[in-house]
Amino acid sequence: LTAIVEQILQGQRRAIARQISQIENNQAEARPVLAELYPHTGQAHLVGITGAPGTGKSTLVNELAKIYRRQSQTVAILSIDPTSPFSGGAILGDRIRMKDLAGDPGVFVRSMATRGSLGGLARAAADAIKVFDAAGFQIILIETVGVGQAEVEVARLAHTVIVVDMPGLGDEVQAIKAGLLEIADIFVINKADRQGADRLEAALNMMLDLGSAASTKPILHHEVLMEVAGPILHGAGENTWRPPIYQTIATTGHGVEAVVKGLAEHRAYLVQDGSLAQRERSRMLFELEQLLKERLLAELMRNLSAAYLTQMLDKVVTRQLDPYTAVDLLLASGQAEDAPQASKGFNNG
Amino acid sequence: LTAIVEQILQGQRRAIARQISQIENNQAEARPVLAELYPHTGQAHLVGITGAPGTGKSTLVNELAKIYRRQSQTVAILSIDPTSPFSGGAILGDRIRMKDLAGDPGVFVRSMATRGSLGGLARAAADAIKVFDAAGFQIILIETVGVGQAEVEVARLAHTVIVVDMPGLGDEVQAIKAGLLEIADIFVINKADRQGADRLEAALNMMLDLGSAASTKPILHHEVLMEVAGPILHGAGENTWRPPIYQTIATTGHGVEAVVKGLAEHRAYLVQDGSLAQRERSRMLFELEQLLKERLLAELMRNLSAAYLTQMLDKVVTRQLDPYTAVDLLLASGQAEDAPQASKGFNNG
Repeated sequence: LTAIVEQILQGQRRAIARQISQIENNQAEARPVLAELYPHTGQAHLVGITGAPGTGKSTLVNELAKIYRRQSQTVAILSIDPTSPFSGGAILGDRIRMKDLAGDPGVFVRSMATRGSLGGLARAAADAIKVFDAAGFQIILIETVGVGQAEVEVARLAHTVIVVDMPGLGDEVQAIKAGLLEIADIFVINKADRQGADRLEAALNMMLDLGSAASTKPILHHEVLMEVAGPILHGAGENTWRPPIYQTIATTGHGVEAVVKGLAEHRAYLVQDGSLAQRERSRMLFELEQLLKERLLAELMRNLSAAYLTQMLDKVVTRQLDPYTAVDLLLASGQAEDAPQASKGFNNG
Repeated sequence: LTAIVEQILQGQRRAIARQISQIENNQAEARPVLAELYPHTGQAHLVGITGAPGTGKSTLVNELAKIYRRQSQTVAILSIDPTSPFSGGAILGDRIRMKDLAGDPGVFVRSMATRGSLGGLARAAADAIKVFDAAGFQIILIETVGVGQAEVEVARLAHTVIVVDMPGLGDEVQAIKAGLLEIADIFVINKADRQGADRLEAALNMMLDLGSAASTKPILHHEVLMEVAGPILHGAGENTWRPPIYQTIATTGHGVEAVVKGLAEHRAYLVQDGSLAQRERSRMLFELEQLLKERLLAELMRNLSAAYLTQMLDKVVTRQLDPYTAVDLLLASGQAEDAPQASKGFNNG
């Protein structure tokens, strides 16, 4: 084993931090270590926490971690920020609120932000989770900033997804929430001391009743991959698990113990039902799909000259060529076995 | 020209609607028509509207469209919902608020939602934009539901990005907003009659001052592609355009005319500065990248047996194989020129 691999397996914080920085900076270079760590993963309970901005997700995550620590479980918190380096300060502000957890060797808190594609961020998060898992953290809380498709990506990473809601959000937020129904294994109504918590619970229950009647299409979009992995069956898609709804006031810790209990119940359900294995398959297949696409594109690019790519792009921009035909031509040129030099020579000349 | 292509070029609403449904249902089948439409695109001003939930984006879009109509410009509104079919009803509710625009042949309103990947949704949106553009709509307003990476994707689709903000949002939302700084060409502080609008404007100005000092990394992540397209230079990344800040009350229309004027100014700036061509290059290169990845994966899958893929996945799930090595093996098997049958036979047997 490489030295850093041993240090991570021993749970050494500096090695963990260094490896995650490496993942953020250069995923390709991080891979040999990740490959060595991989056999030591698979023990942690991966919990995704998502929901509209302002619902108090960070505070809830904080409280969940404190309860797990009282139960002597180790916790890693991965905060995924799909926005940018600009928000680094604000996120840091969030993390300062976690000072009750600071100095506890059983807790590791890390924010991740990349300027790359969402795919890149999801992949980096998947790799960071492997590091925490191999380092022996028993609970990994994966928290997102923002609402939107990023949540679906997080659902792909987690075994259990908590959707956090609160009373008094506007119509637009309701619409987003409806979309999160499908990925929720557990609902938390935070800020439950505000007016309308019971009404919200009733509304969520109604949506769950409607939702379970709807057909659930899998999230993976490539047919062959889907066939092999089977559909991802989170939340309302699974008819044997009805997402429980908890009311909490995270700022005081009220109700959060019940959520921890609910998480354990969901984990036990996943194991007993075989769903855990199914989710692991979906998680891994999604990861394989992303890695394959990256590698295939990189290989194609090695065979294409920048001059030819530029030429194709210019033609598309000036509307001499449509993008679909341009892709045909790029593939033909990049995959040509017999005369790659000839085609490159032509295009460069 | 195919009949449907002619109908779309004439602006026939039913043909437009049918083509967009086709794009949603099956992008591959939609492509021949899109290829024919493509030479007729490139005239519209593509405006992305984004921001935190509850800021009143939909109402603002409504008001922008009304002003453009008074100026006799035609407007298409594409509402992108990265959540799910569950939220269909809520979005529809939003659109009902647009009833002042209903029956006007110079306006076309369409919501889009897919259960596929974010990449799939962005690609479908890009294709829908082509249909509107070819049909002759002069202004295309692209609105997103939700906050997160989806906004970055929308920035890739648009020439001009409006980020909508409002007084009184919490800390967490501030963090998200900071991330949106980089993609904003224009800021709108909506609900400006609420307390704190001027303070928010001052804060945004301060963030812009800080932001323009920060280094701007390009959004595209593949090096070769990036080299060819150059970086995407939205918002604060461009040091010659400082995003203006407008205060509006969209519910009364107050201040919205100034935003329309600002949009025209930004468009003129883009043309004069050469940035429009640069953004078109980035837009198109991103689209080419996505199409290439899809096609490459589809080709690989045709050469791989489901049995071999299943076998690799099983080994990864049981931790006998790490995902990086599994990808190496899958690529080797799917790209083997000489003995594809042999390797498939082995794996099936």
